[in-house]
Amino acid sequence: MRLARHGTAGAEQPLVQGPDGVWRDLRPVVADLTPATLPQVLSGVALDELPVVAAPGRFGTPVAGIGKVVCIGLNYRDHAAETGAQLPEEPIVFLKTSDTVVGPDDEVLIPRRSVKTDYEVELAVVIGRQARYLADEAAAAACVAGYSISNDVSEREFQLERGGQWDKGKNCETFNPLGPWLVTADEVADPQALGLRLWVNGQLRQDGSTQDMIFGVHHLIWYLSQFMVLQPGDVINTGTPAGVALGRAGQPYLQEGDIVELEIDGLGRQRQTIGQA
Amino acid sequence: MRLARHGTAGAEQPLVQGPDGVWRDLRPVVADLTPATLPQVLSGVALDELPVVAAPGRFGTPVAGIGKVVCIGLNYRDHAAETGAQLPEEPIVFLKTSDTVVGPDDEVLIPRRSVKTDYEVELAVVIGRQARYLADEAAAAACVAGYSISNDVSEREFQLERGGQWDKGKNCETFNPLGPWLVTADEVADPQALGLRLWVNGQLRQDGSTQDMIFGVHHLIWYLSQFMVLQPGDVINTGTPAGVALGRAGQPYLQEGDIVELEIDGLGRQRQTIGQA
Repeated sequence: MRLARHGTAGAEQPLVQGPDGVWRDLRPVVADLTPATLPQVLSGVALDELPVVAAPGRFGTPVAGIGKVVCIGLNYRDHAAETGAQLPEEPIVFLKTSDTVVGPDDEVLIPRRSVKTDYEVELAVVIGRQARYLADEAAAAACVAGYSISNDVSEREFQLERGGQWDKGKNCETFNPLGPWLVTADEVADPQALGLRLWVNGQLRQDGSTQDMIFGVHHLIWYLSQFMVLQPGDVINTGTPAGVALGRAGQPYLQEGDIVELEIDGLGRQRQTIGQA
Repeated sequence: MRLARHGTAGAEQPLVQGPDGVWRDLRPVVADLTPATLPQVLSGVALDELPVVAAPGRFGTPVAGIGKVVCIGLNYRDHAAETGAQLPEEPIVFLKTSDTVVGPDDEVLIPRRSVKTDYEVELAVVIGRQARYLADEAAAAACVAGYSISNDVSEREFQLERGGQWDKGKNCETFNPLGPWLVTADEVADPQALGLRLWVNGQLRQDGSTQDMIFGVHHLIWYLSQFMVLQPGDVINTGTPAGVALGRAGQPYLQEGDIVELEIDGLGRQRQTIGQA
């Protein structure tokens, strides 16, 4: 299944798409896709009984009311190298607040006084079942609701040059486009074999594969569950491959009016216009 | 006013206390104290029309559905010194997820495999009005709903010795007792003149004053609003004074069965039993 939410921001309605590729209205099953209703939807939906939605509107975030966004830093070998960082011995963890999450095609705002706003295409994992002190990676796999795309937008000066912790450069408004939809885990044969790409104004900037992750998806969920409790609807941004502006010659950071497009194999595509806060 | 929520966890009911010191049922005004209803309650409540609650039950968090908990690191001169850190040139910012927040007297759990679980008494600021690119500290003052107490529980090995960012040691379950109530800003004459204390098993471990903050409350709100949008119900943990286990001779970290008590002038008192996850 693909799960999504469409409509104007703040008034989205839930959608589901089965193997026939037809979007259907999920409202006869649940009023909205939320952390509370996600487990029910994942347990199965009688698609034939739902009304067809011929032309979905704007896509919002695939789940409303996300509790937390847990992010993994430097999780691709080539990205660690381009930023001059050593390979981490265990996952680096930081956080985004859930109010940074916007729809996949919503405007992304450069913060005021920012000169180093950067992009990061990432495989987003959405949790479907509580994960707490999991025994092993097999138990972690059972906690995945599905996968989506995150743009882990980052302000590098705020993140790296303003004293202390990365969170300062990761939590500006609109800094986490998510979507366009959630592809349930059963439809992703191998989360470690997905190509992921990002373009700025049509120029390919990132072109990686999740096979180059240092710590794979199931390891990350197992690992995180030793430190925090993951809940249904929580999102894990699993890190970005090489090609961010920080690591490129001339550091071509985002400018107002830029168009950023992101794509992951089987997970759809995002397109954001860059605005100014 | 003091605002609080009482009852069993997950089913708390809102309370209000006026100058007469009597707790009253706030349900005739709002179903619960949440980010959505907080501004309405702050705009004024006709106390005389509300039923008296003679004996409140367990206190929960003063606001339900908190969006985010923004934390300030090393914000007291004596605490920076005891941890061997330099004084920060600008506020150090990290995050706690809102699902770490528990009631003021709820059990706090030592994480599995933890040997360095530590306590931190902190002045908690609750936001009552959206704060986004505020012009100055006067504008910041107008965004304060009120004040409460946080125990910013921290696992020092996870925070400092496990690669990278502090968030890994700050977000274990039950790691942010908050309460017992929210004292509205109009009743706190000077947030920079509050004594704050913490005891473990009756031994005074922290005994500081908010006058020793490096960055005061209004500066912090103004500063944060340049990097992220603060929403009603968001909480800022403003840092801890000296006396944490990390900085004491012998590093007396918390053990199962310990009793931790916290107090801030005019804001009440917390009491937690330490358990094992």
